[in-house]
Amino acid sequence: MTTKEKLYEGKAKIIYPTDDERVYLTYYKDSATAFNAQKKGTITDKGKVNCAIASALLTYLEKKGIPTHFIEKVSEREMLVKAVKIIPLEVVIRNIAAGSLCRETGLPEGQILPQPLVEFYLKDDALQDPLLTPDRLALLNIATNEQIKQLQTLAKTINQHLIEFFKSCQITLVDFKLEFGLDHQNNILLADEISPDTCRLWDTQEQDKEKRVMDKDRFRKDLGEVESAYQKVLTRVLNQIEKLENS
Amino acid sequence: MTTKEKLYEGKAKIIYPTDDERVYLTYYKDSATAFNAQKKGTITDKGKVNCAIASALLTYLEKKGIPTHFIEKVSEREMLVKAVKIIPLEVVIRNIAAGSLCRETGLPEGQILPQPLVEFYLKDDALQDPLLTPDRLALLNIATNEQIKQLQTLAKTINQHLIEFFKSCQITLVDFKLEFGLDHQNNILLADEISPDTCRLWDTQEQDKEKRVMDKDRFRKDLGEVESAYQKVLTRVLNQIEKLENS
Ligand SMILES: Nc1ncnc2c1ncn2[C@@H]1O[C@H](COP(=O)(O)OP(=O)(O)O)[C@@H](O)[C@H]1O
Ligand SMILES: Nc1ncnc2c1ncn2[C@@H]1O[C@H](COP(=O)(O)OP(=O)(O)O)[C@@H](O)[C@H]1O
Ligand SMILES: [Mg+2]
Ligand SMILES: [Mg+2]
Repeated sequence: MTTKEKLYEGKAKIIYPTDDERVYLTYYKDSATAFNAQKKGTITDKGKVNCAIASALLTYLEKKGIPTHFIEKVSEREMLVKAVKIIPLEVVIRNIAAGSLCRETGLPEGQILPQPLVEFYLKDDALQDPLLTPDRLALLNIATNEQIKQLQTLAKTINQHLIEFFKSCQITLVDFKLEFGLDHQNNILLADEISPDTCRLWDTQEQDKEKRVMDKDRFRKDLGEVESAYQKVLTRVLNQIEKLENS
Repeated sequence: MTTKEKLYEGKAKIIYPTDDERVYLTYYKDSATAFNAQKKGTITDKGKVNCAIASALLTYLEKKGIPTHFIEKVSEREMLVKAVKIIPLEVVIRNIAAGSLCRETGLPEGQILPQPLVEFYLKDDALQDPLLTPDRLALLNIATNEQIKQLQTLAKTINQHLIEFFKSCQITLVDFKLEFGLDHQNNILLADEISPDTCRLWDTQEQDKEKRVMDKDRFRKDLGEVESAYQKVLTRVLNQIEKLENS
């Protein structure tokens, strides 16, 4: 591991500089937070599991033509990524109503949305990551209209790829959060991670509303068996990747 | 006053039926609430003041060609209105950043918006009147796309009329909330009230950030002199109406 001082320590990862200023090293921790960090805990080996899942999914998306920050997985908990300036937005894509969408609008959990919903939240812990209407987003000057359109298109395309991928893992992709950044040439890259921390994943074969949960909601809602759920996602993802490589 | 049983008692008004099923009587109370009714109190004579202001402004808008529910002011606290089916949306029009827009986005209070912002909130106390993105609004099936467009157009037109009216009262119209309803022929009518309870009004001549406040924020933020601020708005509104009638 690098001996350099960390650049930034977040809730789930630590970012280190490398000898190449265009490359960062991301270290995946076991710490878990929920409800804007009001709830804190540890999920044993989460760092390893999420590093492996995110590496697999980012590689998969890159092969599908999505520009991502992923360079290489270099250890159990570490990946090299292209350094980007993160656009301070959480881009949430929803296929099925769950979480805050249900809490805020009264829509029943599990309702299939007529089309994927792309929502923008301001990535700002102090403001509690508020949902932004398109007008508020434009007012905040976080990104140009052109960039917003690109993010929307990228989000929808990524969603199609991930729905398909997870489907072949017998996993239903309910919703997920993406972060994007700008590289040194101002290209938009998919950054951060894709993992059970950032996706809602339901076991497609399981009907029971608690048992089907394979993501951080197990931690949020104290459903137990958090570690084994994450592990199960990893196993299915890696099996599917292997299948694809051998086909 | 009618002797009939009330149809509905809200936080600020009571709705009574009349002998004509297409007409309701609205009684304006002195009770005041804020923060989704967590804060409760009384503003002496608010009922009288708001009934008079709302009557004046709804009459003014009706003359400008806006379809409203207003029929007639029949006593100090009562007005007759056309019975409508309220569309459960709070349509908020913002000219200057204030209130929840600032709290949620970090925009500085007082920042003049490049253009009026029309926002839709779900009128649902249990859900705490959540802000709706256009996509969420469409998902909830509260109104047709055509109706939403009409609401937006009406809101902007009403805003232009009210900005102009309040300007001649030396009052800056910061933001305000409207409710609309459908009459027996499914026409959209402006309903409910327009008053210092539902508008942010700043004394245009006053620079001091607390002294300039002439609306329910005096109650929300415990700024004192609530009654006299409401009274001042009433006096200026009635003076301006008189001026217009004599010109
Ligand atoms: N390629 C990248 N370049 C720069 N920063 C990144 C990159 N990928 C992710 N980040 C940022 O790294 C930080 C660490 O991740 P995380 O622990 O999830 O933090 P947070 O608590 O802010 O969500 C996040 O702020 C994330 O936006
Ligand atoms: N013309 C109308 N016909 C039917 N209902 C109306 C009309 N105008 C206003 N209302 C409704 O009357 C109710 C009473 O007002 P208010 O005390 O402000 O209630 P609330 O606490 O629900 O805001 C509100 O729900 C409002 O939507
Ligand atoms: Mg994060
Ligand atoms: Mg009301």
